[in-house]
Amino acid sequence: MDFHSAPVFTDDEYARRLSLAHRAMTDCDADVLVVTDPCNMCWLCGYEAWSFYVPQALLLVAGRARPIWVGRAIDVEAVHQTTKLVEEDIRCYDDDLVQLADGHPASVVAESIRAEGFCQGRIALELESYYMPPRYRDHLEASLPHAGFLDFGVTLNRLRAVKSLEEIEVLRQAAAIAQNAMRVALEMMKPGIREADVAAAVLAAQVRGVDGTSGHLPSSPPYLLRGKRGACAHLSWGDGVFGEGESAYLELLGCRHRYQVTLSRALHFGTPPRRVVNAARASIAAIEVALATARPGATCADVANAMLGIIRKHGIEKSTRCGYGTGIAYPPTSGERSYSLHPGDRSPLAAGMTFHIHPNLAFEDWGLYITDTMLITETGAEPLTHLPRHLVIR
Amino acid sequence: MDFHSAPVFTDDEYARRLSLAHRAMTDCDADVLVVTDPCNMCWLCGYEAWSFYVPQALLLVAGRARPIWVGRAIDVEAVHQTTKLVEEDIRCYDDDLVQLADGHPASVVAESIRAEGFCQGRIALELESYYMPPRYRDHLEASLPHAGFLDFGVTLNRLRAVKSLEEIEVLRQAAAIAQNAMRVALEMMKPGIREADVAAAVLAAQVRGVDGTSGHLPSSPPYLLRGKRGACAHLSWGDGVFGEGESAYLELLGCRHRYQVTLSRALHFGTPPRRVVNAARASIAAIEVALATARPGATCADVANAMLGIIRKHGIEKSTRCGYGTGIAYPPTSGERSYSLHPGDRSPLAAGMTFHIHPNLAFEDWGLYITDTMLITETGAEPLTHLPRHLVIR
Repeated sequence: MDFHSAPVFTDDEYARRLSLAHRAMTDCDADVLVVTDPCNMCWLCGYEAWSFYVPQALLLVAGRARPIWVGRAIDVEAVHQTTKLVEEDIRCYDDDLVQLADGHPASVVAESIRAEGFCQGRIALELESYYMPPRYRDHLEASLPHAGFLDFGVTLNRLRAVKSLEEIEVLRQAAAIAQNAMRVALEMMKPGIREADVAAAVLAAQVRGVDGTSGHLPSSPPYLLRGKRGACAHLSWGDGVFGEGESAYLELLGCRHRYQVTLSRALHFGTPPRRVVNAARASIAAIEVALATARPGATCADVANAMLGIIRKHGIEKSTRCGYGTGIAYPPTSGERSYSLHPGDRSPLAAGMTFHIHPNLAFEDWGLYITDTMLITETGAEPLTHLPRHLVIR
Repeated sequence: MDFHSAPVFTDDEYARRLSLAHRAMTDCDADVLVVTDPCNMCWLCGYEAWSFYVPQALLLVAGRARPIWVGRAIDVEAVHQTTKLVEEDIRCYDDDLVQLADGHPASVVAESIRAEGFCQGRIALELESYYMPPRYRDHLEASLPHAGFLDFGVTLNRLRAVKSLEEIEVLRQAAAIAQNAMRVALEMMKPGIREADVAAAVLAAQVRGVDGTSGHLPSSPPYLLRGKRGACAHLSWGDGVFGEGESAYLELLGCRHRYQVTLSRALHFGTPPRRVVNAARASIAAIEVALATARPGATCADVANAMLGIIRKHGIEKSTRCGYGTGIAYPPTSGERSYSLHPGDRSPLAAGMTFHIHPNLAFEDWGLYITDTMLITETGAEPLTHLPRHLVIR
C-alpha cells in the first residue's frame, strides 16, 4: 500500500472503542471527556503523530458520535491523513499559542467545549496523563469556571487493555519484529563488540521490520546493559565494549502502528557462575508459571504471586512488579498503564489482554533479564514471541 | 572509557548550574524547588535514566549544597552510576507505589521536603513539566497542607539555554552524528527505496555515532516524509517507497548524552517544479538571514521576523515559528522549551545559546524542510552542522 491506510483499523473497530468510552462516560455522569493521552487518542480515532509535546486533546462529547480533535494548526493535516475525522470535527490553534509566555491552547479546548453547550457540564480529565501538564489543566479549569471536573484516571487505558482480533494481528506483527531484532542482536553480541554497534543493529532491525512489514519507533530505547551497568534499570547502551566474563542483557521492543511487544534475553561471555545460571533458571521458571497461571478470571496478583513464589524458591527475593499490560504506547513508557502483575493489583484477567511478563532480576553489581510478552486467551495464555528461553553463553 | 564517566561534566560545571538554580529560587523566595523535568534533572546532576515514566524529582533545598533525588528504588543504582550524589541524597519508594490504585509516590517527595524542615515552606513546582501529571501535583499539595506553592515555569530550561564550553563540545559531537546520519540517508534515498529502509539506516547511524563516539537515542523519530505526507508535521516514515516525481524531506537529530542537534534536508526525485525550487530557495535564504541576524542582544523576534520577511519575499506565507532552543532533551520533544524564534518572543539572545533554525514550509499536499542548528557566539552566530544547503535532486 502506498500510504498508511487511514486509519489503521476498520470503522467497526473504532465504533466499538468509542462505544466503550461513551459508556464509561455515562457511568460517571461525564458530559465531555478530554482525552490527552496520545495512546488513548490513537485508540479512539487512529491519530498517530508525534505532536503531543504541545497541548492537544480529543474531546468525546455526550450525544455526539464522532470525537473532536483539538490541536496545533500544523498538525491538522496529520488528522486528515491518519483518521476519518472531517473538517467539522477539527479545532486548531496557531503558533502564537505555542510555548510563549502569554496564553495557552487550553483556551481553544475550553472554547470547543463551550461550543458544544457544556460550559456548565461535567468534564472528565485524565489526571494521570503526561500530556496534560498542570498548567494545561489549570488553564482549562480557569477557562470553564462553571463546569465541574472529575478524574477519568486510566479508565481508557483499561478499556483498551482488551484487544480485538484486529489488534492482536498488529501485535503479532510487532512480536515478529521484536523477535527478529533480538535474533540480530544475539548473533552480534560477543566480547570486543561495541555496545553502540549492537544497539544500532537493534534499532535498524526494529525499523526495517520483517517480511516487508515495516516497524515504527518504540517508546523506549533498547536497554542493553552489561556488567555492573546491569544492576541499573532504564539505562541504555554506554560507550564500552562487551567483555569476557561479563553478563549482559538486552530488553527491546517491536512496534507496529504504536502497538508494542517486549522481549528480553540474557547472555554470559564465558563460563557463567552459578549465581547467573540460577537467576536465569528462576526467570525462565517465572515465565513458565506466569503462562500456566494466567487465564480469564485469574487476577494480576495471582500471576505475580506465582512468579514471586518460584523466584523465591530459587533463593532470590524480588520486590519489583512482575509485568504490566502492553499495547499502544508512546513515550515515555512502553507499558499500557492499565494493569500490573503485582500482588497489589487484584484486577481479573480477560481474554485479549496482553502483558509483558517481566521477572527482571537486579543484584548489587549485575542484573539479568529474560522476559516475554503473553496474550490472555479464552482458556489460558500464550506467548507472542517464540524465541527459546535460555541463558545465551558465548 | 569503559563506562560512562559519572557524571558527564566536571564538578565545576555542575556547581555553576546549581548556583544558577539556587539564585533563581532566591529570586522568587522559594525554599524548595521540585524539579520533575528529566532534562533539568540531568542538567543539575547528570542523572540520565529512562525512568521518568514514574514519578520522580530532584529537590533543590535552600541552604543545602547537593540536590536530593527522589525516585523508584529500582532506579537508585542509576543515580549512583550517572551522578555524584551519595546515599544521604537519595530517597526512594518501592513498587507498591507504582501504577497501582492506592497511594502515590508524591507522598515520598512530601516526606523528603518535611524532613528538610520545609513543611510550611514555599515550594516551587515546574507546572509545564510533562512528568508532573496533575495527579502527582495534587497528591504533593495535599501531602503538604501548610506549604505554599508557586510555579517555577520553564525557568530552568531558560537557564540551561546558555551553554558552557564543555556543553558546546558535546553539542558538536551531536552535530557530527546528525551530519553523518544525514549523509547516510541522502546517499540511499532514490525512487524505489522503502521509506523504512532509509529510516532504519538513519537510526543505525544515529546510534553508531562517528569516530568511535557513540550516539544516544534522540527524543523524536526521524521525520521522513514524501509526497502528500510532506504536508504533515510530526509523522514519521510510512510503509511506502520513494517515487519518481515526488518531493521528500528528512528531519533528523544527533544525540550525545541527551544533547541534541537537528538537521533537515529536502530532495526531489526528477526535475523539480518551480514551486519546489522556490521553496528551497526561500528556506536557504531564511537560514542565511537567521545566521546573519542572530547575535547577542538581538531578540528571538528579530531573527524570526527576518526569516519571515525573506520567506514572504519568495511569495510564501509562513505562520509557524521559525525555530526553537535546542540542548538537553528527553521525549516527547527535541526542543529545549526555552525560547522560540517567533515574533512573539522578545527574549534577547546570548552567546552560548543554540537554536534549531526551522524555516519549515508546508503546503496543501507537500512540504519542504531545509533546516540547521546554530550556536550564538560572542559576535554573531555559526552553524553547528556543515552540510551544503541545497535541494538534492535525484
